Amino acid sequence: MQTKKGRKLEKRFVAEGIRLLEESLKNNFLPIKLYYTESLLTDRGRWLVKEFEKEKVSLYNISAKDIISISDAGTSQGVLGLFNIPLLKPGIAFKKSRKLLLLDNISDPGNAGTLLRSALAFGFDAVILTNNSVDPFNPKVVRSSVGAIFGFPIITATVEEILRFKKYDGFKLIVADTKGIDLNSKKINIKNYSRIVLALGSEAEGISEYILSKADIKIKINHAAKVDSLNVAVAGSIIMKEFYK
Amino acid sequence: MQTKKGRKLEKRFVAEGIRLLEESLKNNFLPIKLYYTESLLTDRGRWLVKEFEKEKVSLYNISAKDIISISDAGTSQGVLGLFNIPLLKPGIAFKKSRKLLLLDNISDPGNAGTLLRSALAFGFDAVILTNNSVDPFNPKVVRSSVGAIFGFPIITATVEEILRFKKYDGFKLIVADTKGIDLNSKKINIKNYSRIVLALGSEAEGISEYILSKADIKIKINHAAKVDSLNVAVAGSIIMKEFYK
Repeated sequence: MQTKKGRKLEKRFVAEGIRLLEESLKNNFLPIKLYYTESLLTDRGRWLVKEFEKEKVSLYNISAKDIISISDAGTSQGVLGLFNIPLLKPGIAFKKSRKLLLLDNISDPGNAGTLLRSALAFGFDAVILTNNSVDPFNPKVVRSSVGAIFGFPIITATVEEILRFKKYDGFKLIVADTKGIDLNSKKINIKNYSRIVLALGSEAEGISEYILSKADIKIKINHAAKVDSLNVAVAGSIIMKEFYK
Repeated sequence: MQTKKGRKLEKRFVAEGIRLLEESLKNNFLPIKLYYTESLLTDRGRWLVKEFEKEKVSLYNISAKDIISISDAGTSQGVLGLFNIPLLKPGIAFKKSRKLLLLDNISDPGNAGTLLRSALAFGFDAVILTNNSVDPFNPKVVRSSVGAIFGFPIITATVEEILRFKKYDGFKLIVADTKGIDLNSKKINIKNYSRIVLALGSEAEGISEYILSKADIKIKINHAAKVDSLNVAVAGSIIMKEFYK
């Protein structure tokens, strides 16, 4: 389950630790199995296990050695959930959404998780990843999303499947691109963009030519020439914040 | 050199890979020794080694096995520099600066490095870290700074040393705090803040009470209630961007 192949075969993922599992509970996105180790639990952990019990989640009391061996972090707060990966089609996201984040070629799990967290914080309705991006159910992505993974639909699809959204009403494709218009330029009137897909590519390789060719608008963030570029999670979050104001 | 204690004893740090060493060269912040492995070098790497030779840096041609064993990344582009840690006092930063970033209790190396990169991108003149933060010359911080470490003064000091800046003209202490005023509120007129220290604390433990008590203004970033907080590197970068516009 801790490898991409394992997750694909089993359609399961793991989330561990109190903070993540509190988000699972809060969002009613429940594990199919909850493993816990009595001796490692704090009061908060014990309360959490009881709440999952009330929700009829299957509980397994296992040894400290066993929970640490399943854990990706190499340490444990004594609680770990096994979840079904929700298999969603991109059409679902487009039908009801106003703001979508599209991650193309984002391979760093920390950046991907941070972008999920910011997307949920800034009112995005779903996140779609092209299949050349990191697996969003990778334990490192789950951890750095700080539970955002439970808060809204996360969808993996091909570029072609994704770009079919163009048939839905009013969606504009905004691409972060260093050759774009300054985000704070008066030429960009955010009110004109009632439904958007914001696309971000990798720092090293940029965004796919195909996505770039479909852009309605390209946006850049002005910064001093002393650095070549911003971190992608920072750049994406700054743009998302602008569309949240 | 790859441990904090080692770096403190030797007052040296390591930066590896082409992108980082290009920044070292560009900023004329040169290594005291440059290790390279001919067989691992690309053309870009070979050019880089020649440039350091012109700058009279001591070069050491070592085996692939040796360079990988020194490397923190567990892989190598065949080039690695050993640098002196610049020992700067906070007073130096305050005398000539307009915008300073203060990191208190920031322990994640990826977040610290990303904040250094954003600070340089958004025109900050120096970064000061309290000594409860991660060592800024830790290889993971150096790497995620993408060379920003070479671009401006990075200073470690105690809170007391840092807060002496109050004697310098016109500095305002801005603290990121979830109980603050909204960053985009009309109450905040950025033009009133010609010289600033922007202080960020850890996500888990927040900022020291002492720094908070000295704040001239506390600023928060509005976001949806679906997440508890933003990643600290994202939050800090959004505020720095606002002061760059």
